[in-house]
Amino acid sequence: MQLGTTWYPEYRDESTWELDLAQIRDAGIGAIRFGEFAWSRIEPEPGRFDSDWIARALAAMRRHGIEAVIGTPTATPPRWLCERSPETMPVDDSGRRTVFGARQHRCYSSPAYREASRGVVEHLAQRFGGDPTVVAWQIDNEIGGEAKACYCDLCAVAFRRWLEPRYDGIADLNKRWGTQFWSQTYQRFDQVPVPSRTALQLGLKHNPSLMLEWLRFHSENMVGFCHEQAAVVRRGNASRTPVLTNYDAFDWGENIDLRRMFTGLDVVGFDLYTDKDHVIACYCDLMHDVLARPFWFMEYDVSSAKLAAELDAIAASGAVERLFFFKFNPFPWGQEQSTRALRTVTGGATANYDAVRVWSKRSRPTAPAVRRRVGVVYDHDSSWSRFLTGWSGIPGDLTYPRALVNDVYRALHALGERARFALEPAALRDVELVVLPWTVVHEPGLEQAVLAHLRRGGSLLMTQDVFLKNRDNVFNETLPALYREMGCAGFLDHEPVGEHALVRDLRVGKARVVVLGTGATFEQWTHWLRMLLPAA
Amino acid sequence: MQLGTTWYPEYRDESTWELDLAQIRDAGIGAIRFGEFAWSRIEPEPGRFDSDWIARALAAMRRHGIEAVIGTPTATPPRWLCERSPETMPVDDSGRRTVFGARQHRCYSSPAYREASRGVVEHLAQRFGGDPTVVAWQIDNEIGGEAKACYCDLCAVAFRRWLEPRYDGIADLNKRWGTQFWSQTYQRFDQVPVPSRTALQLGLKHNPSLMLEWLRFHSENMVGFCHEQAAVVRRGNASRTPVLTNYDAFDWGENIDLRRMFTGLDVVGFDLYTDKDHVIACYCDLMHDVLARPFWFMEYDVSSAKLAAELDAIAASGAVERLFFFKFNPFPWGQEQSTRALRTVTGGATANYDAVRVWSKRSRPTAPAVRRRVGVVYDHDSSWSRFLTGWSGIPGDLTYPRALVNDVYRALHALGERARFALEPAALRDVELVVLPWTVVHEPGLEQAVLAHLRRGGSLLMTQDVFLKNRDNVFNETLPALYREMGCAGFLDHEPVGEHALVRDLRVGKARVVVLGTGATFEQWTHWLRMLLPAA
Amino acid sequence: MQLGTTWYPEYRDESTWELDLAQIRDAGIGAIRFGEFAWSRIEPEPGRFDSDWIARALAAMRRHGIEAVIGTPTATPPRWLCERSPETMPVDDSGRRTVFGARQHRCYSSPAYREASRGVVEHLAQRFGGDPTVVAWQIDNEIGGEAKACYCDLCAVAFRRWLEPRYDGIADLNKRWGTQFWSQTYQRFDQVPVPSRTALQLGLKHNPSLMLEWLRFHSENMVGFCHEQAAVVRRGNASRTPVLTNYDAFDWGENIDLRRMFTGLDVVGFDLYTDKDHVIACYCDLMHDVLARPFWFMEYDVSSAKLAAELDAIAASGAVERLFFFKFNPFPWGQEQSTRALRTVTGGATANYDAVRVWSKRSRPTAPAVRRRVGVVYDHDSSWSRFLTGWSGIPGDLTYPRALVNDVYRALHALGERARFALEPAALRDVELVVLPWTVVHEPGLEQAVLAHLRRGGSLLMTQDVFLKNRDNVFNETLPALYREMGCAGFLDHEPVGEHALVRDLRVGKARVVVLGTGATFEQWTHWLRMLLPAA
Repeated sequence: MQLGTTWYPEYRDESTWELDLAQIRDAGIGAIRFGEFAWSRIEPEPGRFDSDWIARALAAMRRHGIEAVIGTPTATPPRWLCERSPETMPVDDSGRRTVFGARQHRCYSSPAYREASRGVVEHLAQRFGGDPTVVAWQIDNEIGGEAKACYCDLCAVAFRRWLEPRYDGIADLNKRWGTQFWSQTYQRFDQVPVPSRTALQLGLKHNPSLMLEWLRFHSENMVGFCHEQAAVVRRGNASRTPVLTNYDAFDWGENIDLRRMFTGLDVVGFDLYTDKDHVIACYCDLMHDVLARPFWFMEYDVSSAKLAAELDAIAASGAVERLFFFKFNPFPWGQEQSTRALRTVTGGATANYDAVRVWSKRSRPTAPAVRRRVGVVYDHDSSWSRFLTGWSGIPGDLTYPRALVNDVYRALHALGERARFALEPAALRDVELVVLPWTVVHEPGLEQAVLAHLRRGGSLLMTQDVFLKNRDNVFNETLPALYREMGCAGFLDHEPVGEHALVRDLRVGKARVVVLGTGATFEQWTHWLRMLLPAA
Repeated sequence: MQLGTTWYPEYRDESTWELDLAQIRDAGIGAIRFGEFAWSRIEPEPGRFDSDWIARALAAMRRHGIEAVIGTPTATPPRWLCERSPETMPVDDSGRRTVFGARQHRCYSSPAYREASRGVVEHLAQRFGGDPTVVAWQIDNEIGGEAKACYCDLCAVAFRRWLEPRYDGIADLNKRWGTQFWSQTYQRFDQVPVPSRTALQLGLKHNPSLMLEWLRFHSENMVGFCHEQAAVVRRGNASRTPVLTNYDAFDWGENIDLRRMFTGLDVVGFDLYTDKDHVIACYCDLMHDVLARPFWFMEYDVSSAKLAAELDAIAASGAVERLFFFKFNPFPWGQEQSTRALRTVTGGATANYDAVRVWSKRSRPTAPAVRRRVGVVYDHDSSWSRFLTGWSGIPGDLTYPRALVNDVYRALHALGERARFALEPAALRDVELVVLPWTVVHEPGLEQAVLAHLRRGGSLLMTQDVFLKNRDNVFNETLPALYREMGCAGFLDHEPVGEHALVRDLRVGKARVVVLGTGATFEQWTHWLRMLLPAA
Repeated sequence: MQLGTTWYPEYRDESTWELDLAQIRDAGIGAIRFGEFAWSRIEPEPGRFDSDWIARALAAMRRHGIEAVIGTPTATPPRWLCERSPETMPVDDSGRRTVFGARQHRCYSSPAYREASRGVVEHLAQRFGGDPTVVAWQIDNEIGGEAKACYCDLCAVAFRRWLEPRYDGIADLNKRWGTQFWSQTYQRFDQVPVPSRTALQLGLKHNPSLMLEWLRFHSENMVGFCHEQAAVVRRGNASRTPVLTNYDAFDWGENIDLRRMFTGLDVVGFDLYTDKDHVIACYCDLMHDVLARPFWFMEYDVSSAKLAAELDAIAASGAVERLFFFKFNPFPWGQEQSTRALRTVTGGATANYDAVRVWSKRSRPTAPAVRRRVGVVYDHDSSWSRFLTGWSGIPGDLTYPRALVNDVYRALHALGERARFALEPAALRDVELVVLPWTVVHEPGLEQAVLAHLRRGGSLLMTQDVFLKNRDNVFNETLPALYREMGCAGFLDHEPVGEHALVRDLRVGKARVVVLGTGATFEQWTHWLRMLLPAA
């Protein structure tokens, strides 16, 4: 695992570069990420570019034997763009357009934003695409991080245009969404509302089929933006260095289809801020499994009191190729001002600067190889369906990713296990135990893989809501094959739940299937995982 | 007590009707409520009606010996109405008009909404008013459930028009409301503001007299809508079947004067979702006492683990004539999608389907007759005043209905008692103990009834805030007769409160009067009710 | 200490005045404050004044030997002003202009508001400036109480105009604020946004330098309004009676620079609502120290169960010259309707009326003189910086004033000590122990005073964040002299914190310096204050 760090020439006085880079090199750090918020520096006015400082910074890095990752700056549109084209700024769910002053203030549906983004990235890619110091390009920063969805008129039009080919006319949409409920039948696609917050005193929700499509639309809209940017970079990328983006572990639930996004890129990038060992381990397994190859931590927090031990564990996981600390120097100003960095604000070394320096020079401990024999299904549609759930009775207070990390994976971690995350059914081929947590949306391909697993005698641990809904976020009125195989007629959302959250403990041929209530706790997941895991 | 259920022909494929109805009949259920959200089905475009499916559904019910209640669909205006007349949609307290996508999205002051509502209901009433299958009409659905108040310009005009005849000119309003306070004197009625949320950083409130009138106006506006609809139904109602509406137990405080609304109808309808025995018992007594005759549960939840015992208790109360389960089949789609129903989503019987089937066939246990010797005053003005209370020092965090149910009535229930709810003074004529909880608004008629009760030697349990205010929501500057009779000069809102929340324990002639702090708990109510109730 | 009370002739029927005033006099109360919300009474329509009632009220007070403080009524603009000039009403941080109906509904930047305010106050000052009954004038009421900031277009222009002379051009602003961060570089001052709430799903903040200037601007805007009003009063104030205003103990953090405001006035006025002894004692010391002379309690709550003991303690503090109770008669109507007053709503005496009557007649106990040997620094910039802190890592959940009162001062109070509050460095000249709590903004003058104190051998108790930032709310990149003297390189925001919150316990020459974590609790402050205080 190679160490890197964010270090921002655009924020540091040029007179300090040499000293900074010597300190970086001296800590055994060999790569730098920068540039991802520097739009107004690179393009101070429309169409006038100033990137000589980048050339000088790359040259300085090269002199110190340090590699570079350039971040494209499209997450922070400059003041002049917002002034000239206010429609580039997103609208919230009460219909209010944001003011200038934060970041991620961009509507992905805005042609003006898209065009300006292509412009600045094309300049960078054309000029630095062949630079030998540059080992990768990071598209944007934490796409979708601060704003999951924009509710502007441009998005309304784009949403309806995106919906139309997915249905066999408006009558098909009405039927599949059940719009006869509450009299919501549409005559035309342009009547489908953008699901802004209703202004009623009880917080009523929109139709759940509409809502799931709304989340999918925004995921696709952001993926489309990311891939468009990647294409611009690749056109100028003479040295064919990898293109990636950095995704974040959003507490509030993920909002982009990870496989869709990273399948169009070369490397999975990920940002993590935690000091909890099970969380670190979980994301190592999960982000590795998105493309089934090692990924890069693009931001890793430096304030943990046990940083060296965390680096040991991450390196030993084999899941991570590069790890960039965030950040080398503190930001004295701005919204992220803080003293959390490898150097102090007055220029000294922190304890963790010294810890990294020692760590990078010593030999890594070899970790015991842990076979990943538990397959955990991760399904975006199910996650989003759960996020949207209100009156359906399935508890929606916990987001799917949070529960997956803190209940299911933490239980595995406590038992000394790792997980093979299945973002597609094929990943279940050679595991001993399959876990289907809150996988409410029925995917026939996944169901076939689970049935094949059972026929091989593999165990299954699932929640009571598995496959209850179809891809329209509507309850299935015919029983999925899994339930027929189990000899069950399905479960109700108010099913009586027994000891350790048990709803049913079944034999299906040679296989054992345990069904848990959707509210199963960490302790209950631990109990059943222990029961179902053969001694290693 | 006759059993019914909601079952929606508009949501079920016509091919399933026969099987559904046979299952309903087989469970001993003899009545169906439907239609209350089917506006877009009945009137797919303005003025074009399609109700042949209702005729077919009624015929099918009749074949199975099942009676019908038609719900009028005015709580879900269709897309075309909102598109054509956006002013039919309500505005929230920050001035934002709701988007389409939920239900109850209607402003009761909108002429276009009123006209369209009359149109669709007239069609139904004219066509099915004489149908022998129809045993009742339900007006709308849970009126005022999602939106207590609309703040639009139409409501502003209607509110001022409603205010004007209640005052002897603007000077009288200024005097009664005390608008000299904070310099709020008005010169004209059209200056009285709609009490939208103030946009200050501390959440300051509007004048409490204005606010109470605002709540009364909306109650009257909704009652007026309901009665107008009832008149339309009655004009077409050849068979003179009863007209009702279904009120809901709103946790957030009731928002319609129950006697005002139901006095213009034939039957009290009520919806309840709970499995708490004291809540069920409380609403049985309360809703019975609105018109002093048995009422109908129009929606009763089917997911309780002890449904049969609940049905026994309700039947034994003698307060309920009909009970409709909600719901027979689950909704697979839409905002209320859920598996909570008597049948499963894949068509099977739930445990409670079987429980109902058994219950409807066996003889009802006879419950011990419990004489209702405790009169509990229920006063809307006091409830609303309490809801509005902020700086007055009387705790406003608990709504009046919630406290009444969970503190006062629960205490009675724990002691094996029932209540006679007095929504008007006459109901106190023959009780042994009168409870006046948070009855802050002084009603001279009620005071006379309480004094007469004391002179008969009856006991009184009251909170310290009783009768402190007049109907303008203003503190009385002269002492109410009750206090003179008690020899007290009234109580302060920061009165010292003793053991068991006691403020005063008095003799008034032969009668005992106990005054409690307004924050008395369930345990404290239980203590004093036990003290004051003679052994049965 | 002389007793006063608020008593409102504008709210009382003139027939009750004589009785009211006799009751006031009989309780030993010799002064009255009134008029501060009576604008619509004084100026019922634009330019037409009615103040004869004030003349009659003053005459009545004089007859009873009672002195008067006139409050100017500018905190409650009348309906006609808001109707004629809607731009006088403030806009909140989501861009919504407030509706009429509360108080403090005024934008201090509005010329129309300023002009109307001058008009009504000039009338009062000209007519009653020489009245011998009037012993002081109170400007407005709790300025900034309900609305810290207005976000309207007038404020936007005024803010930018105020900013411009504070910077050496926009480039200087960009540099000092670090606007290169997140690409926020401005080309012109008119691009600096009013920091409205961003409409993103994560609540991102604005640049912290911008935010601190925004708070300073509003403080200055309100101070400017106050001083303008004071000038109007003084022009008519023939008898040269003192001019003051009443500040409030805002739980949410103070929003006006107290020394800036009161330096332009004659007396410090303060309102307090609490029955906590340490809070009373704290504000006695603090408000005394604003101008280093006794202040006036303009509002003091009357509902405490130990009012006489509180009066004893306040009188013994020597910090208070006059104390006005709030309020003599209850308000039966309006937003502050309540029974909390010295008289009941039906006209009787409360227990505290009798307590005041007794107290005013008996001799005051002499309190032991407590030397104020602990200097506590109070710094607005630091308080505001802390209030704005988010991602900087310094906990921002507690406001500075709340922590100062309930952690630091409460600890002093528990040890029998009082504080000398240093709102300017000179106040530290002769104390034995200096406390620097969360004094994050580096003021060189203050630093010099602290260093001089250390050189005298005085002890220092400080939090780890002291002087870390400059006046731009930006972390200092060079080490402040205090740290060099301490031989420390500064502290990180994630510094390990030891027992009793200890970060460092140092000797600096003869002086002892203890550095605590920013989250130190009351118990921990108590521990260290006890350690550092020499036996008295």
